[in-house]
Amino acid sequence: MAYDATKLKDFEIAEQAEKNMPLPYEWQEKLGLQKDEVIPYGRICKLDFMKIIDRLKDKPDGKFIEVTAITPTPLGEGKTTTSMGLVEGLGKRGMNVGAAIRQPSGGPTMNIKGTAAGGGNALAIPMTEFSLGLTGDLNDIMNAHNLAMVALTARMQHERNYDDAELAKRNLRRLDVDPTRVEMGWIIDFCAQAMRNIIIGIGGRMDGFMMKSKFGIAVSSEIMAILAVAHDLKDMRERIGKIIVGYDKKGKPVTTSDLEVAGAMTAFMRNAINPTLMSTAEYQPVLVHAGPFANIAIGQSSIIADRIGLKMFDYHVTESGFAADIGFEKFWNVKCRFSGHVPNVSVLTATIRALKMHGGGPKVVAGRPLPEEYVKENVGLVEKGCENLVHHINTIRKAGINPVVCINSFHTDTKDEIAAVRRAAEAAGARCAMSEHWLKGGDGALELADAVIDACKDEVNFKFLYPLEMPLRQRVDAIAREVYGADGVSWTAEAEAKAKAFEENPEYKDFATMMVKTHLSLSHDPALKGVPKGWTLPVRDVLIFAGAKFLCPMTGSISLMPGTSSDPAYRRIDVDTETGKVLGLF
Amino acid sequence: MAYDATKLKDFEIAEQAEKNMPLPYEWQEKLGLQKDEVIPYGRICKLDFMKIIDRLKDKPDGKFIEVTAITPTPLGEGKTTTSMGLVEGLGKRGMNVGAAIRQPSGGPTMNIKGTAAGGGNALAIPMTEFSLGLTGDLNDIMNAHNLAMVALTARMQHERNYDDAELAKRNLRRLDVDPTRVEMGWIIDFCAQAMRNIIIGIGGRMDGFMMKSKFGIAVSSEIMAILAVAHDLKDMRERIGKIIVGYDKKGKPVTTSDLEVAGAMTAFMRNAINPTLMSTAEYQPVLVHAGPFANIAIGQSSIIADRIGLKMFDYHVTESGFAADIGFEKFWNVKCRFSGHVPNVSVLTATIRALKMHGGGPKVVAGRPLPEEYVKENVGLVEKGCENLVHHINTIRKAGINPVVCINSFHTDTKDEIAAVRRAAEAAGARCAMSEHWLKGGDGALELADAVIDACKDEVNFKFLYPLEMPLRQRVDAIAREVYGADGVSWTAEAEAKAKAFEENPEYKDFATMMVKTHLSLSHDPALKGVPKGWTLPVRDVLIFAGAKFLCPMTGSISLMPGTSSDPAYRRIDVDTETGKVLGLF
Repeated sequence: MAYDATKLKDFEIAEQAEKNMPLPYEWQEKLGLQKDEVIPYGRICKLDFMKIIDRLKDKPDGKFIEVTAITPTPLGEGKTTTSMGLVEGLGKRGMNVGAAIRQPSGGPTMNIKGTAAGGGNALAIPMTEFSLGLTGDLNDIMNAHNLAMVALTARMQHERNYDDAELAKRNLRRLDVDPTRVEMGWIIDFCAQAMRNIIIGIGGRMDGFMMKSKFGIAVSSEIMAILAVAHDLKDMRERIGKIIVGYDKKGKPVTTSDLEVAGAMTAFMRNAINPTLMSTAEYQPVLVHAGPFANIAIGQSSIIADRIGLKMFDYHVTESGFAADIGFEKFWNVKCRFSGHVPNVSVLTATIRALKMHGGGPKVVAGRPLPEEYVKENVGLVEKGCENLVHHINTIRKAGINPVVCINSFHTDTKDEIAAVRRAAEAAGARCAMSEHWLKGGDGALELADAVIDACKDEVNFKFLYPLEMPLRQRVDAIAREVYGADGVSWTAEAEAKAKAFEENPEYKDFATMMVKTHLSLSHDPALKGVPKGWTLPVRDVLIFAGAKFLCPMTGSISLMPGTSSDPAYRRIDVDTETGKVLGLF
Repeated sequence: MAYDATKLKDFEIAEQAEKNMPLPYEWQEKLGLQKDEVIPYGRICKLDFMKIIDRLKDKPDGKFIEVTAITPTPLGEGKTTTSMGLVEGLGKRGMNVGAAIRQPSGGPTMNIKGTAAGGGNALAIPMTEFSLGLTGDLNDIMNAHNLAMVALTARMQHERNYDDAELAKRNLRRLDVDPTRVEMGWIIDFCAQAMRNIIIGIGGRMDGFMMKSKFGIAVSSEIMAILAVAHDLKDMRERIGKIIVGYDKKGKPVTTSDLEVAGAMTAFMRNAINPTLMSTAEYQPVLVHAGPFANIAIGQSSIIADRIGLKMFDYHVTESGFAADIGFEKFWNVKCRFSGHVPNVSVLTATIRALKMHGGGPKVVAGRPLPEEYVKENVGLVEKGCENLVHHINTIRKAGINPVVCINSFHTDTKDEIAAVRRAAEAAGARCAMSEHWLKGGDGALELADAVIDACKDEVNFKFLYPLEMPLRQRVDAIAREVYGADGVSWTAEAEAKAKAFEENPEYKDFATMMVKTHLSLSHDPALKGVPKGWTLPVRDVLIFAGAKFLCPMTGSISLMPGTSSDPAYRRIDVDTETGKVLGLF
């Protein structure tokens, strides 16, 4: 029944599979939903999560399965492919299963050929809509976020132009924002390096307020973080009102509530709060909610999607961003702490390709052909690279979870290479399954599905890496040593001063620690593969997301605004004007 | 059957009416559409215009009715209210009727309390969705537009950093954009005066290209202009590829096609090309497509919406922006020229309030109570103000159309005031109808409906103000004298040099002339009411929209980016977190 993934491109498989994708009313019947719980958007739909939660509140939660990965090559190691394959495999075993994944960002879609929809027979469909904005959540985030900046900059202009008496006529008090301490920037959903550092408000007295400003990519927005961690609309409204846009001249935080803009921001998020329903290529339900980029954002599918997924499905698969050192660490210490959900098992995705890179294989560059080491057997490189895999297994075990290692197989993998991974994984105490979902769909993922079903019977003794009482700098030290394998942490004077101030403020005691670090290495340096030794994690700044309740240590040189390359993907994208079909996306 | 508009607020009437608004599948039956021609977006839907046009291509067009207005007060004179009232009135007369209106912009919605959905019993519903993004067309425009700027700025960075050999490796030729001649800016759908003049690209060699830049409001985007005038997807694709982003160092235009980004931009517009279907409060169909702001944009509902409206309805009402000197003038000389559609009649909306202002009444300021002159009888002010009305009647007659003046009545209007308007309109040769659609819905608009039905029997001898062969500066002179009543036109040296260069280039011979001028006066000065005499129109710049095929003379000091006031509407907007309802929008 599977499509021939060795001959067909992903988008060709998707096109075939999409022909029979359930329509909104068919999902409604298939999932036993009420009519008004399904909100159609063309051929896809959103689910009214408040109605579903309310109806199913007494139903016990299903099994909770997280999917993460080893440190990837720049090509990605198929975390979404594995999530989709696992769902398809559990489906073949007759289970009531579904998943929650993250929505891709327009930045990478327009910059790097490809998608975040999985691949081969383990795809999320419809692929074009998934890659190009879906039901508009990212646009809603952009509008909500940028409205706060409109409010801030207009207010600074008016406060400069008017005296207190004039302000009082409009029922405004002077906020007195310090223009050198504006923390928030604007967002756009593209890789726009030219907007990283800008000066705004040039002109006369009616042209805003002149100051430095910045753009980040949309997924790095605090509103995206809030969408990922909010419990419901009430919680989202409260969090949006606590976003710190900057500080006044006495050092006191100025928030979106001070700007009286938090209600209007929430109005723009009224539809985005509902997860979108998509499908695997074998027609199991896939919830899409919140965004990617665990390196610079939380990069988790949302707590709201997990809340309804755990009620609707007996096995609910949720995807964390990037490698286990950041994606799983945030799932573990941030998302699970906020949600109260306890996972039954984690699936750690690995590919032979990435293990060879960690073993010392040549550099892998997106868009260039793979060096020979990656397409011919080389057991030695794989064996050496397994130290990265074992490091991540040990990290997950620190949470009290024994992971299932999934070898996401590729047709160039050899028996001996796969056997080497199995040996290493099992020696580290983990289950291991080779999975051919890319080639065979659910039928290829039965070993993985069985390993997960079996692992879900284990007792989980879930524990966080650090208690909330631990001060920020100690927490970062714990994450650096225990998860990344660093010898310690070094702080710039500015970052340390900020960290100290945050530690001393009782309001921030229960804030999560949300690391900003490259996913391409366990360290802060993307060039260091395997398990880097004898290094110190440099922290150069600490951001505060007071609405999301995050303190975000910024490590290395990673930026909240990626750049567009000299050979970007948009060059090859077009529309067939007869059919309306988008070409060249994948 | 009408709601009590003197007691209920617009949003309360809308809430009642929305309870029985047809659902997508009900519209499908009601309008005799095929199942796959209706694309639901929650409770509302888009219509697949290509399928509908194709199915109905042999059906003759219905009657084509344009709605415009006299020079308005800053409060607006109810052009959309009159469009909705007229549709409801024609509906009461048993006609198969529908309308095409423009989608509001987030800028005014967040800045000035109110909506562009009409009012009283002459409303477009659902109002909240209409006011907050509808089916995402403005977001699509924003993404398509800003992607071009991402491509431009990234390319400028890479061309600075790489030599020709490095560029050739990526199959790129040097475009050599002149950073002092970048014409295109970024867009955002808010009034963000702080973004009018900015400097971007500050930082190192991977942080873009340092230069001046700017943001305009989304509706002023050339992509919005293209959406308004495109004939179909093929035409849209071609136009998007011709957008001039700037000039190279030899003065040659650099386009989106040169940046290889036009296909990807079109991909973001694939859904926006389909009009959205809304409803009057009496459940006639209302197509919503393209944007407002005839002062700084084309400000017309789209040609695509008219194309399907004229096929689907026997009477198709289309709305032009703002006052007849700009909204009607652009409908007449730009939109009808591009579409080939010939209108049967124009409806010229007037209110007693606006006529009094033109007669010398005190200043009207949004958000402040109306001065006494506007709420008590004052026939003298009305009579004097009618010179503005008569001026617009004469303009419309120059197109070969005899307009129907609609007095959009308000409960404070008196019999003698209305009689004064009738006398003036009829003396100028126009039909005149007093209409109470605000109070009574369709039942209040029967006189207007009958006048329009009658006028549609007139023979129309439609003629343009100027032939396409007329050079740009002569055209502007003709518009200034014949439509605005100016004594002539003055050009800055820069504007004249640009105009001359455009005139000499044979590629721009058939481009439309798209004036940028305030709507608050016949002149360029918003303070001058009535019919200003003895003045000259100052042109300070000429923009080129080579994809839309517009040359845009910029008059007076009007900006493409409005400002957010010191008491903006977002202060009063919030969300009811129990029900998800948006509060305080209206």
